[in-house]
Amino acid sequence: MRDNISNSYVALELPVQWGDMDAAQHVNNTVYLRWIESARIEMFQKMHEGEFDSNRIVPILAWQDCKYIFPVTYPDQVVISLDIIELLEDRVLCEGKIYSKKHKGIVAISQSLLMAYDMKELKKYPFPQTWRKTFIDFYGESILK
Amino acid sequence: MRDNISNSYVALELPVQWGDMDAAQHVNNTVYLRWIESARIEMFQKMHEGEFDSNRIVPILAWQDCKYIFPVTYPDQVVISLDIIELLEDRVLCEGKIYSKKHKGIVAISQSLLMAYDMKELKKYPFPQTWRKTFIDFYGESILK
Amino acid sequence: MRDNISNSYVALELPVQWGDMDAAQHVNNTVYLRWIESARIEMFQKMHEGEFDSNRIVPILAWQDCKYIFPVTYPDQVVISLDIIELLEDRVLCEGKIYSKKHKGIVAISQSLLMAYDMKELKKYPFPQTWRKTFIDFYGESILK
Amino acid sequence: MRDNISNSYVALELPVQWGDMDAAQHVNNTVYLRWIESARIEMFQKMHEGEFDSNRIVPILAWQDCKYIFPVTYPDQVVISLDIIELLEDRVLCEGKIYSKKHKGIVAISQSLLMAYDMKELKKYPFPQTWRKTFIDFYGESILK
Repeated sequence: MRDNISNSYVALELPVQWGDMDAAQHVNNTVYLRWIESARIEMFQKMHEGEFDSNRIVPILAWQDCKYIFPVTYPDQVVISLDIIELLEDRVLCEGKIYSKKHKGIVAISQSLLMAYDMKELKKYPFPQTWRKTFIDFYGESILK
Repeated sequence: MRDNISNSYVALELPVQWGDMDAAQHVNNTVYLRWIESARIEMFQKMHEGEFDSNRIVPILAWQDCKYIFPVTYPDQVVISLDIIELLEDRVLCEGKIYSKKHKGIVAISQSLLMAYDMKELKKYPFPQTWRKTFIDFYGESILK
Repeated sequence: MRDNISNSYVALELPVQWGDMDAAQHVNNTVYLRWIESARIEMFQKMHEGEFDSNRIVPILAWQDCKYIFPVTYPDQVVISLDIIELLEDRVLCEGKIYSKKHKGIVAISQSLLMAYDMKELKKYPFPQTWRKTFIDFYGESILK
Repeated sequence: MRDNISNSYVALELPVQWGDMDAAQHVNNTVYLRWIESARIEMFQKMHEGEFDSNRIVPILAWQDCKYIFPVTYPDQVVISLDIIELLEDRVLCEGKIYSKKHKGIVAISQSLLMAYDMKELKKYPFPQTWRKTFIDFYGESILK
């Protein structure tokens, strides 16, 4: 079991850009989800080195949420950790945490639900066994629900 | 009670821009939340004509989610409706629906939780009675929970 | 010869979104170029109905500039016109103008230089004669330089 | 005189995010200008430690261009250098270069013209002598034109 940022499957550090802020003078709500997306993509890059076929069957975002805990401002550095927290038959649930180095705390938590999608047939596809295996190899069977 | 797009407190029509799409060739997940944000801002613009003091006490996004139902692509026009679905003591829950004119269907549903924030003290503020009144005047007491 | 917005090859109307503004409280400089891009894409969509092969030989942006005349703010509607102003052997120069309905004036002018690119060979490609013909048919030979 | 990235007034390293790419599968043209903006802001942050009054008289972007030399893709790291190349009475001309670590070369060059703007009066303001001094102290009198 992985339970903190340093042990996460993915941990990505990104600088806050001034242009990430909106007219309310803090980082726009959509940017937090861009950061989480970057961590998800990095997770799939890692898996891709194994058996992930990016051309036809791809992971697709079915749902996500975000709890905004503290407003981020420029300048700052954020560290985004991402982990699988549940692996079901046809989907996987990820949890991402955004940590601010300036504020020394978690500023947002976002969960996302991924499914497999057939880019040729344009419809849902059974979750590949090779993806399941990659996650179970890393996390152990405790993520199976 | 309002229960469809044409009766919503806010209904905003926006064109999909080519640049809203990402390398997966459909509209990026963050853009759906930008559209929902635009509808939320329009809702507060409407209220502002009443009694909303934008300078000090402002609505702040505490949480949001988004269920992605169907991928949107350029060219298309989307219609975003937004309604209050629950009014609590210190927060309000909105539900936005994104409708694609090309696909003639709802392509995403997003809920968002707003609280009041004091921009001077940089902390949570009691939800203003004038905001509550505006919502109750429009929706009736059925939104009170 | 086309010399104003209503006679342009492309004229696109877009709403300003609140989130287009940055921490300086006016529309971010990159958003003006997103609008110009949207007009360019619409121009190529129009041509595509003719003979534009989007799969292999595509227009690519080699250079652009933007003169910022007046800061745009939410709410507003902008009208973006785009025209070819020079057609050379291997490239075409476009000029876009952004008009604010709120300020009743041109708020930015942007030129862009497009070349043809071979997406398979990943290098520059001779400017297709079919593209040249489409432009000359619309503008006349005065755009030839 | 500063003439390469390591000697620039500002040199900023940023990771390319997957979401920076558009449907053409390379980094969108507007993102290059976001990177340049980030370098400009860092330049003014540095000056701010001196005498830059951010509240009322601010630098404003009057014009910019960008020459796109090579398409950037995820994953990559870019290094953005920024320098003043001309200091005139009422404006300053900057030149930014974007270097790709993956391609080991400059992928874009962008110039930008900054003027001083009075945020209270909403109009152009004489270029502050303190700003001039900061630039001349760093670059020497060769930037005066």
